[in-house]
Amino acid sequence: MEKFAVLGCGVVGSGVVELFEKNKALIEKRCGKSLALGYILDLRDFPDRPYGDKVVKNIDVILADKDVTVVAECMGGVEPAFTFVKSCLEAGKSVSTSNKELVAKKGDILLQTAKEHNVNFFFEASVGGAIPIIRPMHKCLAANAFSAVAGILNGTTNFILNKMICDDMDFAAALKLAQELGYAEKDPTADVEGHDACRKICILSSLAFGKHVYPESVYTKGIREVELKDTKLCEQLGYAIKLIAQVKALENGKILPTVMPMAVKNTNLLSQVNDVFNAVMTDTDGADRSMFYGRGAGKFPTASAVLGDMIEQFQLDGTICAQTWESAENTDFIEDFSAFAAKRYFRTSAADVKLLAEVLGDVDEKTISTDEDETVCIVNTEMNAAQVDAAVKALAQKGVQVLAQYPVLE
Amino acid sequence: MEKFAVLGCGVVGSGVVELFEKNKALIEKRCGKSLALGYILDLRDFPDRPYGDKVVKNIDVILADKDVTVVAECMGGVEPAFTFVKSCLEAGKSVSTSNKELVAKKGDILLQTAKEHNVNFFFEASVGGAIPIIRPMHKCLAANAFSAVAGILNGTTNFILNKMICDDMDFAAALKLAQELGYAEKDPTADVEGHDACRKICILSSLAFGKHVYPESVYTKGIREVELKDTKLCEQLGYAIKLIAQVKALENGKILPTVMPMAVKNTNLLSQVNDVFNAVMTDTDGADRSMFYGRGAGKFPTASAVLGDMIEQFQLDGTICAQTWESAENTDFIEDFSAFAAKRYFRTSAADVKLLAEVLGDVDEKTISTDEDETVCIVNTEMNAAQVDAAVKALAQKGVQVLAQYPVLE
Repeated sequence: MEKFAVLGCGVVGSGVVELFEKNKALIEKRCGKSLALGYILDLRDFPDRPYGDKVVKNIDVILADKDVTVVAECMGGVEPAFTFVKSCLEAGKSVSTSNKELVAKKGDILLQTAKEHNVNFFFEASVGGAIPIIRPMHKCLAANAFSAVAGILNGTTNFILNKMICDDMDFAAALKLAQELGYAEKDPTADVEGHDACRKICILSSLAFGKHVYPESVYTKGIREVELKDTKLCEQLGYAIKLIAQVKALENGKILPTVMPMAVKNTNLLSQVNDVFNAVMTDTDGADRSMFYGRGAGKFPTASAVLGDMIEQFQLDGTICAQTWESAENTDFIEDFSAFAAKRYFRTSAADVKLLAEVLGDVDEKTISTDEDETVCIVNTEMNAAQVDAAVKALAQKGVQVLAQYPVLE
Repeated sequence: MEKFAVLGCGVVGSGVVELFEKNKALIEKRCGKSLALGYILDLRDFPDRPYGDKVVKNIDVILADKDVTVVAECMGGVEPAFTFVKSCLEAGKSVSTSNKELVAKKGDILLQTAKEHNVNFFFEASVGGAIPIIRPMHKCLAANAFSAVAGILNGTTNFILNKMICDDMDFAAALKLAQELGYAEKDPTADVEGHDACRKICILSSLAFGKHVYPESVYTKGIREVELKDTKLCEQLGYAIKLIAQVKALENGKILPTVMPMAVKNTNLLSQVNDVFNAVMTDTDGADRSMFYGRGAGKFPTASAVLGDMIEQFQLDGTICAQTWESAENTDFIEDFSAFAAKRYFRTSAADVKLLAEVLGDVDEKTISTDEDETVCIVNTEMNAAQVDAAVKALAQKGVQVLAQYPVLE
C-alpha cells in the first residue's frame, strides 16, 4: 500500500482528497496498486470531515514516513511551500503542485532537486487548472520547435471582460459581480493587474524554450483601464478584447513574453473562450496550431490536474521522467518589450480615414464613426510601442487625439 | 546510440524521418540520449532521398537488430501492419503507430502483447492527428470518470460541411474540391460514410471506459445525404451541422457510441471548428469540460504525434507505462442505438408552429418559414429514433411532411 500526503487543506487540497475518495477504485485500477491518503498538513483542524484524523501540523511526520511516496502541494505562495516541497523531494518523494507562484519563481531549483533525488516534480495544475497543457506541451509536442504560445490564463479577468462585452457592464460593476460570485478575491490585484497570468506564461515559456523565465522579465499590463466602450466597438469590428498572455520566438533567437489586453480576431478560437474558462494555443513547426481549453480554476478541476500528476508518479515508480528546464544565468535570451510589434486597434477623436491611413499605414476597410464623434479602426501595419507613440504625436499635430489603442492577436 | 525504425515510407512515415532530422538536436536533448534512424521498411526504393540507404524490404532485419528499441508503424491497414507490430513488440521493441484501423480493430491484443513483453504500444497519432488527446485523456484526466467524449474526428468531412455552410457549395461540389485539394481520396467512402470517424471514436471509447469497443458496435452514418439547404437553415437557427463522433455514459452503466451528422449549437466550441481541423471535447466529473483542437491529418502534424510517442518511449527506457484497456468478451456494455435520445432539428413542409408543438413537444421559439414554403424548427424535447418515427407518422396524418431531421449536440 503506497500513501500520499496533501500539503494544505484549502479549496484545492480538500478537492484532491475528495476526488481521490470518489474515484478511488478507478484510480487504483489505472495505477495498478492500492493507494491511501496518509496525511494532510494544515495548521487548522477539520474534526467534522471524514479525513479529519489524517491532519498533522508538522511536515517532519510526512518526511519521516517511507510509505509516503507522493506529495500534493496545494498551499500556495512561495514560503513555506518552497521549503516543504524541497524537503519532500530530498526525502525521495515525488511532488505534484498547483502553486503557480512557486513554479514561476522556483521551478528551476525544484526541477533540479527532483532530478538529483531520482523523483519527479510535476505541476500540471499550475497553468490552466484542469486543462491538460504541461504534459501535452512537454510530451505530445516534444518533437516540435515552438514558435509561439498564447493563452487566456486567468479566469477572473476573462469573466470580467466577458461581462463587459456581453452584458454591457463596466469594469467596476463586472469586478463587483465577479467578487460576489467568488471568482475574484477581495483584493483582486493579482488577477486584475495580470500578475497571475504572468506567472503562468513564465511557466509555459520556460517549458517551451527550455530556460527559466522569471516574472520580472515579463512585460505585464492588466485590464483595469479597459473601457466598456472599447470592448463594444472592438466587437463591432469583429474582435474581442481579452487578457492575452503570450510568448513568441523571434527571428533573432530571443523570446518575447508579454501579458496585456489584446484585440483577438473572431476567426481565432481564443476569441470564443468565454466566462471563467481558460485556453492555451500553441504554434509549432510540426503540429502547427493546437488549442487546449477547459476550466482554469475551481476545486475539482484543479484537483483533477493535481491527481493526474500523482497517478503518473505512482505509475512511474520512481523513474525520472521530469519535464525540465535550465536556470537562466541572465535574461539575454529575453527580448525587450520595445521590440513587440503588432497590428493595432485605434480609437480616436473624429478623423478622416484617409488622414488616419497617412499616419498609421494600412487602415482596414471596416471603420466605425461613433455617435460620440469618435473614429475606430484596425491598422494592419505592425507597429511597436515607439511607432505607436510617434503616431499619437503625429495625429495630435493634425488635430486628432488617440483615445485608446490595443495590439491585435490574429 | 539507440536506433529507431519506421515501417512504411508514405506521407506519415517520411514525415517522421524528416521532422526527426529537422529537430534532431532538440529531440536528443529532450530524450537525454543520442538517437538515429536505423531502418525504413518499404517495398519501394527511395534512391533520391537522403535516407534512401536506410530502406530495407524485410522486417526480420529490424527485428534482429537489438539497437532498434523503438519502431514507428506508418503503413496503415490491418495487415501486414498487425503481424509486423506484434513481432516488434514480441522482440522487445516499443511501437508507436498512426494507424487507427489497426488500433480500433486490434488495439486490445497489441496492448496485451506490449504488457507481456515489458514494452509500450502507443498510438497518439491514431486519433486527431497532431492533437494531443490520447495522453491527456489517459494521464492528465486519469483521476476522472468520463461521462462523454464528442469530437470532430475527420478533417475531410469537416472541410466539406464547412464549404457547404460558408461557400454555398452542395455536397458533390464540396467533395470534388476536397479531392482536388488532396483532402479526400479518389474513393472517399471511408471518410464520407463515417468509417474513419468510427474507428477513432472506438479508440477514444475504449480509452475512456476501459473496454475495447469494436467498429461494428458503433452506429455510423455519414454525410452523403446532408443537403446544402439544411446547413444554411441550421446556421440561421444558430447551429452548425457537423459530423460528430461521440460516446456517452448512460445511467444504466452502459455506453453509447455514435457517428452521425448533428446540429451543433453555436455556444459549443465544436461548432467553431472549421476547415480540415479536428477537435475533441471531454466531459468528466472532476475536470468538467475540456477541449483539444488542432490539425487532424497531414504529413508533419501526424509525424509530430508519432514522434512524441517515440520520445516518451526513449525516455522511459523500457518501463511499462502503457495506456491500456481490456478485450471485450461481449458487447453487453454497449447500449443499442435505439436508446439514443436528443433534441432535434426538423425541416417540414409548411406547418403551423402550434401544430408542430402538439406533435413534437417543446418547439423552440425561433422558427423559420422558408421561401420554398417549408418550416424549420428546433425541438427541445429529447426524442429517440422510435419517437421520431412516430412523430413523422403523426405529422403526416395532419398533412405535414418531415423533409429532414438531425439530432442536436448542445
